[in-house]
Amino acid sequence: MALAAVPAPVLRPSPAAAEPAYSFAAGPARLPDAVLARAGEALFARGGDGAAAIERPFTGDAFRATLAHARERLAALLALPANYRILFMAGGAMQHFSLLPMNLLGASRRAAYADSGYWSRRAIDEGWKQAAVSVVATPPAGAPAAPDVSPGSGWDIPADAAYCHLTPNETADGVAWAALPDTGAVPLVADVTSCFLAAPLDVSRFGLLYAGAQKNIGPAGLSVVVVRDDLLERARPELPAPFSYAVQAAQDSCVTTPPTAAIQLAALVFDWIAERGGLPAMAAANAAKAARLYGFIDASGGFYTAPVRRDCRSPVNVRFHLADSVQDAVFAAEAERRGLFHLRGHPRVGGLRASLYNAMPMTGVDALVDFMADFMRRRG
Amino acid sequence: MALAAVPAPVLRPSPAAAEPAYSFAAGPARLPDAVLARAGEALFARGGDGAAAIERPFTGDAFRATLAHARERLAALLALPANYRILFMAGGAMQHFSLLPMNLLGASRRAAYADSGYWSRRAIDEGWKQAAVSVVATPPAGAPAAPDVSPGSGWDIPADAAYCHLTPNETADGVAWAALPDTGAVPLVADVTSCFLAAPLDVSRFGLLYAGAQKNIGPAGLSVVVVRDDLLERARPELPAPFSYAVQAAQDSCVTTPPTAAIQLAALVFDWIAERGGLPAMAAANAAKAARLYGFIDASGGFYTAPVRRDCRSPVNVRFHLADSVQDAVFAAEAERRGLFHLRGHPRVGGLRASLYNAMPMTGVDALVDFMADFMRRRG
Repeated sequence: MALAAVPAPVLRPSPAAAEPAYSFAAGPARLPDAVLARAGEALFARGGDGAAAIERPFTGDAFRATLAHARERLAALLALPANYRILFMAGGAMQHFSLLPMNLLGASRRAAYADSGYWSRRAIDEGWKQAAVSVVATPPAGAPAAPDVSPGSGWDIPADAAYCHLTPNETADGVAWAALPDTGAVPLVADVTSCFLAAPLDVSRFGLLYAGAQKNIGPAGLSVVVVRDDLLERARPELPAPFSYAVQAAQDSCVTTPPTAAIQLAALVFDWIAERGGLPAMAAANAAKAARLYGFIDASGGFYTAPVRRDCRSPVNVRFHLADSVQDAVFAAEAERRGLFHLRGHPRVGGLRASLYNAMPMTGVDALVDFMADFMRRRG
Repeated sequence: MALAAVPAPVLRPSPAAAEPAYSFAAGPARLPDAVLARAGEALFARGGDGAAAIERPFTGDAFRATLAHARERLAALLALPANYRILFMAGGAMQHFSLLPMNLLGASRRAAYADSGYWSRRAIDEGWKQAAVSVVATPPAGAPAAPDVSPGSGWDIPADAAYCHLTPNETADGVAWAALPDTGAVPLVADVTSCFLAAPLDVSRFGLLYAGAQKNIGPAGLSVVVVRDDLLERARPELPAPFSYAVQAAQDSCVTTPPTAAIQLAALVFDWIAERGGLPAMAAANAAKAARLYGFIDASGGFYTAPVRRDCRSPVNVRFHLADSVQDAVFAAEAERRGLFHLRGHPRVGGLRASLYNAMPMTGVDALVDFMADFMRRRG
């Protein structure tokens, strides 16, 4: 074999060894320190059965206990109403752009979608492959913001729409919905990938929620679906079994071998959230981090700009920019030399972005703000 | 939160602490000791960029280098012809039961399938949802065995079949195909989940191969597809992007966030195989393990029976049984007390089964044979 072992990534050390480094990536994102510290033993240490967690059969008692624990812990965190089911499925959120119409259209051919930015448009693009899509809301003119949801704001949802889809937190655009629309009898379906578990959530407002794991749940390659019982009855029998929410619900997410190690890690993250005080505590910490960063940006006299309209600013994907794209690039490159990584904005949106999910400590935000202040002093 | 942390699985310690325990599960299966020893640091240790491998963005240089390494290493192990592509996809093998017809039917509506046991029948069941299925071969009468492939054995593959599907190693039935059929111009497509990387394989005989990772590749939640270029041209544009082999090939398996940690682990396994001498070395070790176990069974004077016809015995899923199902259950329970786990056969097949994938050392087979000899002395 001519290939050498894969080289370790070449990483510049941060200038002071004592100074920690932070990844502000939008995802895969940072895991909680405490989870990372336990993960090696939790997944890879062999037990008296000659197997580590990652090696145990998904049909065995040990994995089934972990799966039940993950499901029950998540239900407790969400205060889940009794008529909802939790599914753990391999793969990310994007597959659900297709699985939603495949599972939920039922006798209808129509689905309604709100356009609030890059990811909702990706969902719309995939939705068109399966359904007649009605785009029922678009972003307002002016600063990036979520569509208007006030009474009389003109949401015209077709009565035959099987569901209405929206993206409450637009990861790329840094836009969060301040309020949800009234969709009447049409079930609200939401891609909550980047805001799931970042704050309390009234599940009963939704027919279905889905989230990729790689922000606040765990590793990439897992997604969580929370679905109201009655929507499971719409599934067509010819749907591929692993892609059927109804079949997955009936078989406790084990239609086929599930991503067992990813679910084990998710269980550790759910435990960590519970130990820290649940979703209210996550929301308080996330609000404090966002206030610190947006507050500094707003007080920078225009050196830094947060372009999103204030009432729609995402608390977890903080978008900002400097005077021009050249300055943005200089900023991101200098930040890396200070141990602050992955601050470039989404390629389709540009500028800069700091993702501050649950696992980002305030010390990371402090380090970023300190660098931003220093950069401004030198360049302002 | 009322829930306590998930309890560690209750495992009886093996009687002598010095005696190692082994899982003979069909999957998720044992990982190589050397991979398990490195995995914690490889995935969970933070680097100078403030991120561990499991936390790094899939768009970054570090993950892209790992992905390229995994792809190139696997291509080298397979001696992959230049006109084949390797895809890493989230989820297991079963999704491909549906993705195959979705991707490969092209203008045809027909696909041919060989029935050789439980898993090929599962593929057929899902195939029917998308295609007109022609079952072109069935198991022979008598002992479990693969369909006859000798010239004149009556394979009647419709000329308009988009592909012919078979399962060269039936994990549940313990049946391996001794030879492949001649399918003429119809591309041969194979579910190689339980035999992939266990021995050299002439990829050029196949149009497409797919395998779930949880046997010889790595953790559950990842699958590998090896596909000939020309078959990618059949994909319909309305296919969901993450499910399109063509789109995944064009975007190097990164249409959506891939299961980055699982791919990282797979790269470690591929390295381990290469370091041990590649697929010829795996085949030699697997043949020695199988010979030891089947040899003992055959020499047991009928106390143990290996029911599969000799020329079709799987070298990696060794099926055997005792006089009756009660004895099988006693055997499996006593084996656990000796540190030998997951020896029950697949529920649909019954009996006993020892899975001996690449990572099972000969010491595990020795421990099993020692126990079998002891059990026979006491019960025979």
